[in-house]
Amino acid sequence: MECIIALDVGGTMIKGSKFIDGNLASFFEERTLIDNDNKASSFLFLIKKIIDDNILDDKLVGLGIAIPGIVQNGIIYGAENLGIDNLNFEKLLKEIYPDIPIVLCNDANSAVIGEKYYGSGVGYHNIVMVTLGTGIGGGIIIDDKLYTGSTGASGEFGHIRIFPFKGRPCSCGSYGCLEQYASATGIRRTAYGLRRGEKTSLNDHGRISVREIFDAAMNNDKIAVEVIDKTAYYLAIGLSIIANTINPDIIIIGGGVSKGGDTLLIPLRKYFKELTFSTAKSTKIELATLYNKAGCYGMYHEVELEVSRNVR
Amino acid sequence: MECIIALDVGGTMIKGSKFIDGNLASFFEERTLIDNDNKASSFLFLIKKIIDDNILDDKLVGLGIAIPGIVQNGIIYGAENLGIDNLNFEKLLKEIYPDIPIVLCNDANSAVIGEKYYGSGVGYHNIVMVTLGTGIGGGIIIDDKLYTGSTGASGEFGHIRIFPFKGRPCSCGSYGCLEQYASATGIRRTAYGLRRGEKTSLNDHGRISVREIFDAAMNNDKIAVEVIDKTAYYLAIGLSIIANTINPDIIIIGGGVSKGGDTLLIPLRKYFKELTFSTAKSTKIELATLYNKAGCYGMYHEVELEVSRNVR
Repeated sequence: MECIIALDVGGTMIKGSKFIDGNLASFFEERTLIDNDNKASSFLFLIKKIIDDNILDDKLVGLGIAIPGIVQNGIIYGAENLGIDNLNFEKLLKEIYPDIPIVLCNDANSAVIGEKYYGSGVGYHNIVMVTLGTGIGGGIIIDDKLYTGSTGASGEFGHIRIFPFKGRPCSCGSYGCLEQYASATGIRRTAYGLRRGEKTSLNDHGRISVREIFDAAMNNDKIAVEVIDKTAYYLAIGLSIIANTINPDIIIIGGGVSKGGDTLLIPLRKYFKELTFSTAKSTKIELATLYNKAGCYGMYHEVELEVSRNVR
Repeated sequence: MECIIALDVGGTMIKGSKFIDGNLASFFEERTLIDNDNKASSFLFLIKKIIDDNILDDKLVGLGIAIPGIVQNGIIYGAENLGIDNLNFEKLLKEIYPDIPIVLCNDANSAVIGEKYYGSGVGYHNIVMVTLGTGIGGGIIIDDKLYTGSTGASGEFGHIRIFPFKGRPCSCGSYGCLEQYASATGIRRTAYGLRRGEKTSLNDHGRISVREIFDAAMNNDKIAVEVIDKTAYYLAIGLSIIANTINPDIIIIGGGVSKGGDTLLIPLRKYFKELTFSTAKSTKIELATLYNKAGCYGMYHEVELEVSRNVR
């Protein structure tokens, strides 16, 4: 049967989905193993292998790939997690798959498209998505259209500065960026700071995961509750700034940290209402419903549009 | 001759312009005197009087009014400086001027339209305007269209929080809002704090104006220079957040404070580059060129569109 393959490339894992007749037929994951010496060609080979392994007896009619970097006209810029910059990846793919529509897109942008058409964003016209993972990403839909900004850099919510003078150093070279407080990395850092010298289950292991922190908070571990409360407050500052600035209908929280569910959402909504300007207090704050498949669904949507355009 | 009148209502003054054949024929200002007991009707009467006094022998073919509040479908909401809320002002105006196009618009939105078509924004597609006056306002153009948000509340840049925990109390009920640091009110407050016990010309008078602070800074008064430097830093935090979030082509600084010119612009651009994420560092930061006429030009543009639509 005819199929569309949608991939969502992350720094650690590549998620993939095969769609047949508008339905998700299979979901698969592979480690993002890229050869340090031949980054571009080994990345291309990896993508081809994942596609070949999963097409099976079906016929590929369209391909979409979400990339953790800036993508313009098929060229990937500054995908730091992949070690790839200024690569015309669409051109390379076209040589292998010459007769089908190929769409490349930034990963946070494909996630917001996925949520708009198949997730928490259905029915809304102005949508902001904030993805909380190792870092913080963002996608913006305005008047039902993806908005990527002047240089493809809109939605860099991780670098909203929430401390004016000092604050934790950020990988961007600045200090006090939201990413250092509300990403998985930031939450763990808050936990490492607060557990020191305290009687808390967060001291049961040296390294702790965000999932363990949420679990401990759900079990009423005082220090874990404090970590989540602080995280919710920091994140609420960021979301209130987004609401006061962009005034979307809804802000959707995605990425691994969104697995925290109500443990995060309840204090987050409380602080958001306290911090946000009156006219934007009504902004909806919801968790992503497609979770780790949002990016694949978004790419599927964009490719399907191209495929049906070609058929017409 | 046929004329369009464009008014820009402020809390203290109403600015007005008469346009004939696409040119500014006259500019006038009146104090915003509204009777406390009959706010709606005295405001209507004042507007009518200003129009009647300035039409002279010309024929009014279109009317535009910029309002310091939220305007939706001709209804004014939350215009706190005028003491007016939930007033269908367009309907009242239509009774007096039944046969001409009437356009009402938020004042910061009309200012960004004015700058886009006749000022610093010419040639740009994604524009943010930040007006620094008694308070801070904002207007956003995305893909050449005015973007007003889900509830007409986009661009509330004054309530970007730049201090996470404490900070100066704001009229919105929150703390640490940008408006308390980078508006005229905020700058004077910074000056009052820094001049205490210092040998500075800022102590020559009890009350000081922002103009006097800029003048003293240009004369190398150490404390005044420090006030402007701090203001530029605070404002740069806000603009870097706007750039990282919306990633416009250009951010235009308007309002009374923009009269500070290079004394403000030079440190502002320096701090902006330091604070902004790499991909958005290239965002242009410029002063408004229409200065106090931006709102009138914006309203003129919107009314002219309506007038030419009717003629066609």
